[in-house]
Amino acid sequence: MANLTDKTPLPGGFRAAGVVAGIKKNGGRDVALIVSDRDCNAAAVFTQNKVAAAPVLRGKKQMETHADRIRAVVINAGCANACTGDEGAHNAAETGEIARLELRLPDPAQIFSMSTGVIGVQLPMDKLRRGILEASKSLSPDNLNDAAYAIMTTDTLPKVITREVVTDAGAYRISGIAKGAGMIHPNMATMLSVIVTDAVVGVPRLKLSLREAARVSFNRVSVDGDTSTNDTLLVLANGKSGVKPSAAEFSAALTEVCIELAKMIARDGEGATKFITLKITGAASVRQAEGVGRAIATSPLVKTAFYGEDANWGRIVAAAGYSGEAVEAGKLSLWFGGVHVFDAGQPTKYDDAVATAAIRPKEIEVRLDLGLGEAEATLWTCDFSHDYVTINGKYRT
Amino acid sequence: MANLTDKTPLPGGFRAAGVVAGIKKNGGRDVALIVSDRDCNAAAVFTQNKVAAAPVLRGKKQMETHADRIRAVVINAGCANACTGDEGAHNAAETGEIARLELRLPDPAQIFSMSTGVIGVQLPMDKLRRGILEASKSLSPDNLNDAAYAIMTTDTLPKVITREVVTDAGAYRISGIAKGAGMIHPNMATMLSVIVTDAVVGVPRLKLSLREAARVSFNRVSVDGDTSTNDTLLVLANGKSGVKPSAAEFSAALTEVCIELAKMIARDGEGATKFITLKITGAASVRQAEGVGRAIATSPLVKTAFYGEDANWGRIVAAAGYSGEAVEAGKLSLWFGGVHVFDAGQPTKYDDAVATAAIRPKEIEVRLDLGLGEAEATLWTCDFSHDYVTINGKYRT
Repeated sequence: MANLTDKTPLPGGFRAAGVVAGIKKNGGRDVALIVSDRDCNAAAVFTQNKVAAAPVLRGKKQMETHADRIRAVVINAGCANACTGDEGAHNAAETGEIARLELRLPDPAQIFSMSTGVIGVQLPMDKLRRGILEASKSLSPDNLNDAAYAIMTTDTLPKVITREVVTDAGAYRISGIAKGAGMIHPNMATMLSVIVTDAVVGVPRLKLSLREAARVSFNRVSVDGDTSTNDTLLVLANGKSGVKPSAAEFSAALTEVCIELAKMIARDGEGATKFITLKITGAASVRQAEGVGRAIATSPLVKTAFYGEDANWGRIVAAAGYSGEAVEAGKLSLWFGGVHVFDAGQPTKYDDAVATAAIRPKEIEVRLDLGLGEAEATLWTCDFSHDYVTINGKYRT
Repeated sequence: MANLTDKTPLPGGFRAAGVVAGIKKNGGRDVALIVSDRDCNAAAVFTQNKVAAAPVLRGKKQMETHADRIRAVVINAGCANACTGDEGAHNAAETGEIARLELRLPDPAQIFSMSTGVIGVQLPMDKLRRGILEASKSLSPDNLNDAAYAIMTTDTLPKVITREVVTDAGAYRISGIAKGAGMIHPNMATMLSVIVTDAVVGVPRLKLSLREAARVSFNRVSVDGDTSTNDTLLVLANGKSGVKPSAAEFSAALTEVCIELAKMIARDGEGATKFITLKITGAASVRQAEGVGRAIATSPLVKTAFYGEDANWGRIVAAAGYSGEAVEAGKLSLWFGGVHVFDAGQPTKYDDAVATAAIRPKEIEVRLDLGLGEAEATLWTCDFSHDYVTINGKYRT
């Protein structure tokens, strides 16, 4: 698993670009284009927010009618095209049409689109059009990094990964990009992420593998508990490698890529100074472990305590208690790193200085055992800092 | 409705005190005692957190066995006596026994107790004992303010109110104190609050009126979305006035007192710079309006935007969308004060400067209409500031 820091070739048949179109106020790259030289099988998971952005509504329809012939993805940052009514729906469709003309494709529904940025503002179509035209001229198999930069909003780092999978039948590649930072609390979906592979994978398998992968990756990170209007995770398989991996093999590779991207998102959460791995063990079910983990991962009191390096474990136990899951106070045990602070409902005789030292590193592991069964789940989150407040108090300005 | 700023006599037969026992690190008053000269009828609502503090577990039992003969309440700040296991349970019972001896009462279960402060630390019983002894010596009908000070943690102001209700049968009084500030997201219960009255009210009526009042007051404020381990709202009626109000009349007075105290809590939320009244209208049911309102009131993105005076209404609509309630994006309309920014799923042609001006005051009203029915709910919350992070990053130190 190589975390790209420089140009790396995309899976066969894919090209990408990321350009400056002037939609983001900071003048950075803001339009990404990813194109396959042949039809792709596609699967996607979307936000469960009932206020879904225009490209999400369009994308859901495309997955019903064109999941076996997607050719390209346009992504813009700086404007979410959410809460934009009829004009927003028109602009999402128009985005496909602009790209279709430029890429000389038969059908605008073969172009998937995503948007991220401010809610409630209409897409600046002139800028987006110029961005798509320019991006189409700079497409290259080596340009995935530019695309990863172009989908960033408050992210401080691009999130990109490529993995080569060697099988008995030959090798195929799988690459992904993602953006996160804020409004991160996916619900059967995620922030924006596009994953492309040259493996041969049919639409039904792609759907199943994506659902499995999303559950244990993007659905297990939280930055602020806000589920976005635009969350979209898309996977495209164009089959160019000619390699047809087994279902288990492909699911494992896709899951690994999704987990790595998800962890990058938690690590780069808005204002984050700490990356927290939260293991919930001893649960009666994975669902219960996830429910407890989500309550802890979204508690402002837990997250500010980590920021302040305060080993205030009572807040973690309290969050488990209000998670809505059937925890039993007398069975809970908690560890900060290797320091056992709470044992079956009773505080241990730990040394506060040792517990505090355990949460001082930039990467922390916390384990809560529910004492109810054998199921577990791992979640990833970050702390809640002054910078989170600064970033989000002035996001539009 | 008079918001006490100085000493005011308690309802007949009640005396109160608040003293320094050295439990709080800042050296402020930290032990409150409220005593009735005769048995009180009592009702209480408690946190729904499955990790309930020792005094909550004890209090629930008392309400089953002694609801018709409560005589006193001891409250300490600085230590929550939560996640304290067997020793914590013993200490909660011991608190009742200490007060029973001092007040010369027959049964320790006639003394209700509450705790607030750091979780996971045992009560310093020597200090608490000295506090109870000293408080019992300074009991006075004029000392409710001292008691309100003594239950504060990160509150910046005491929360106290007295109301006189004149009925055809005569007048009675109702007084209340509360503490809030952080870990404020009640769930069929509240932070700490004690309300006392000299009206004649039976236990069943007291229970019903308290439940009704809590639903539209303490259960409609949120500071940070964290439901505490210690939330307790207690009402005591000693009947000393001899006045027996009608059920409707008593419920209305109790509700008014609870709403005023709840608003004081939102107004004084940790680090709060703005007090936000959130009206959800046009809902299919009150429960739906409450659900949507809670999602908005707890969204860190909404709350930081208010702190930054950013009229980023898309975040409010997005929070409604992920609330879990069956909202329809195309029917939502939103107002900041008098400024209509979103109309049935479409942005209006508002002036951003006017919308920003509408959220600049310290007290803001936001209305979201769901377009689904006639039900509504009003909630109260505050913004999310740098100071919230500062306060909670260093709470124990």
